[in-house]
Amino acid sequence: MQFEKSFSKDADSLRSSPIRAFAALINDPKIISFAGGAPSPETFPAANLAELARRVIAEEKNVALQYGPTRGLARLRECVANISESRGIRSSADEVMITSGSQQALDLIARALLDPGDVVLVELPTYIGGSAAFFARRAELAGVAQDDDGIVPESLDEVATRHRGAGRRVKLLYTIPNFQNPSGRLMSPARRRAVIELARKHDFAIIEDDPYGELVFDSAADTMPMKAGEESGHVIYLSSFSKVLAPGLRCGWMIADPILLRRVEMAKESADLCSGMLDQAIVAAYCASGELPQQIGRVRDFYRARRSVLLDALEQRFGSRARWTNARGGLFTFVTLPDGTDAEAMLPKAIEAGVAYIPGASFFVDGSGQNTMRLTFAKETDERMRDGVARLARLFFS
Amino acid sequence: MQFEKSFSKDADSLRSSPIRAFAALINDPKIISFAGGAPSPETFPAANLAELARRVIAEEKNVALQYGPTRGLARLRECVANISESRGIRSSADEVMITSGSQQALDLIARALLDPGDVVLVELPTYIGGSAAFFARRAELAGVAQDDDGIVPESLDEVATRHRGAGRRVKLLYTIPNFQNPSGRLMSPARRRAVIELARKHDFAIIEDDPYGELVFDSAADTMPMKAGEESGHVIYLSSFSKVLAPGLRCGWMIADPILLRRVEMAKESADLCSGMLDQAIVAAYCASGELPQQIGRVRDFYRARRSVLLDALEQRFGSRARWTNARGGLFTFVTLPDGTDAEAMLPKAIEAGVAYIPGASFFVDGSGQNTMRLTFAKETDERMRDGVARLARLFFS
Repeated sequence: MQFEKSFSKDADSLRSSPIRAFAALINDPKIISFAGGAPSPETFPAANLAELARRVIAEEKNVALQYGPTRGLARLRECVANISESRGIRSSADEVMITSGSQQALDLIARALLDPGDVVLVELPTYIGGSAAFFARRAELAGVAQDDDGIVPESLDEVATRHRGAGRRVKLLYTIPNFQNPSGRLMSPARRRAVIELARKHDFAIIEDDPYGELVFDSAADTMPMKAGEESGHVIYLSSFSKVLAPGLRCGWMIADPILLRRVEMAKESADLCSGMLDQAIVAAYCASGELPQQIGRVRDFYRARRSVLLDALEQRFGSRARWTNARGGLFTFVTLPDGTDAEAMLPKAIEAGVAYIPGASFFVDGSGQNTMRLTFAKETDERMRDGVARLARLFFS
Repeated sequence: MQFEKSFSKDADSLRSSPIRAFAALINDPKIISFAGGAPSPETFPAANLAELARRVIAEEKNVALQYGPTRGLARLRECVANISESRGIRSSADEVMITSGSQQALDLIARALLDPGDVVLVELPTYIGGSAAFFARRAELAGVAQDDDGIVPESLDEVATRHRGAGRRVKLLYTIPNFQNPSGRLMSPARRRAVIELARKHDFAIIEDDPYGELVFDSAADTMPMKAGEESGHVIYLSSFSKVLAPGLRCGWMIADPILLRRVEMAKESADLCSGMLDQAIVAAYCASGELPQQIGRVRDFYRARRSVLLDALEQRFGSRARWTNARGGLFTFVTLPDGTDAEAMLPKAIEAGVAYIPGASFFVDGSGQNTMRLTFAKETDERMRDGVARLARLFFS
């Protein structure tokens, strides 16, 4: 059978992440890798999780090994409501849904809200997994300018106005206000307020994706979610245990309007019936143990130190020949190379030189960003990061 | 924000399973439940799985707790290729993809192949999770007659011919040849051959969903998958560890043409990046331990005994006043009550009498089946099953 002739229109608009295509490369120990975006296994509290896994299976097989509710394990939804409250978001467990990582939330929201041709506003640059979920619905992605304070409201207003004026339905804004992937930027409180205002003005929903908010290195950084505000009815809040515990346990969550949540739950039922119950039982037990705040502290310390090494090396080797974002939290800094540099074209040479990064152009839906690259400080040791930056400097500046 | 005005057309065609709506009821210990379709926790090898979970986390946190390949953990794909070979299916690990339960495979295949209005042929009755995945793509579901030998080829040919004659694209046949949910029926080898022939004639793909094939109670039952045959290019084979190990570990798999598999992999990347890595590592370790064949033997013995109790009770209490399927394997028998009985309308009375079942009409896409019900022997003890059947007999026949 010739399946290539049978694909759906949606299937023909699927896009695979170039980052996942680099996976083999990222995991080659001979290459110093600033590519990839996975958290460091050194941060995983493996001993604790191993014991909890044993315990929840031995003591609660009816829960941990059985099918469970589509919306998620009730006790984990309670934990999530408590965590959210610590971030300023008042929500009951009824407004929480557990998803198989935040990626599933993006996918389900896209299915619930998007018809082909609907417009989704995304940051320039934006997370590729977000774009992929919207492209899979044949949405049109419209880029909105970003600066070091986050989304530029004038750009957001202009882009929304223009598309609405052309008769298009502007359904969603997708944003990662805290230490964005890929840019590492933190959106300022004033910008967040302005973005909410514009959502109300143009009547689009905001997906506020917040996987990195807890990975804050600077106590002065204000990471308060938009969902914590008074006027947050437009905001769909996503977060996850992937960066503070472990991503192999596929536990993300979504907090949203109950009517939307119910529809997303129906979509999830058809997508996978329920998320992994063992993962949920382990994470709930971990939260119940009271360890999470200390774990988050350890993870912060770990990445804070790594980040300093990378930014210091950039300062020393790149100096004024390039710009990079300050990364007050998260896992990434985003580097702007001199005009005319093509980071994608240079990648094979970088790999030859034993170092890898993610070319930034992949993150821009408007075709720009050729002279940018994303670097993560999650993967390599201090020494290898210093070595890697020296190699990149030789490559780009000599 | 008024989300109800923003839903996509696909979202408006989502259907929630009435079975999941019954969940509270199914788990009420005061009610003897033949409803539900979950395997019995008594069959879960919890002690082994608990120890393996501890071990894979403690010894392999880089695998069990980290993001993994979208297509699935390589060593688990090897295990699956070996298991498939024992079922007569020659496949390499390259033709295998791990999914978050078979439900996710159904959903991803639907996304890869179906546009709105495409026709999917389904058995009368059929599994509701399958229909849900197709409805979510706004497909048209066309029912095909079934008898005690499975799909009736003349009906399949007629329905496919009629829809193609009307200019429709008949893309898929969805079938569960081994101990079908809900009917408990086993499709005969001759019927399987005829179905393959018709797939070639009308050029539709076959989703062969096989979660129950290993739960065979009768050594004379021929459960050889269609995918094991010579002419199996049209067949997409699905199976899962949910019924032989534990469904809370969301581990299903798909074996299909590499071109289709690659597209489904892209859809999965956008849907959830990867399935739970801990679940996959545990299941792979369980397979490597060599325990699986004995475990399957234990599960068979468990359900074989339960099934005898239920069928004997039906024989004794229902006698010639109803018909039910023989259930030579699987988890279900399907009961046809006298003409004019409305099993759905009777359900509240049954619950009042302390017993529950699933009304059969939910499983028929053509609106028939009012006088049918699905009974599982997975949930209740022997004594409670006998008591429950007595209550049903009083309800329906007195």
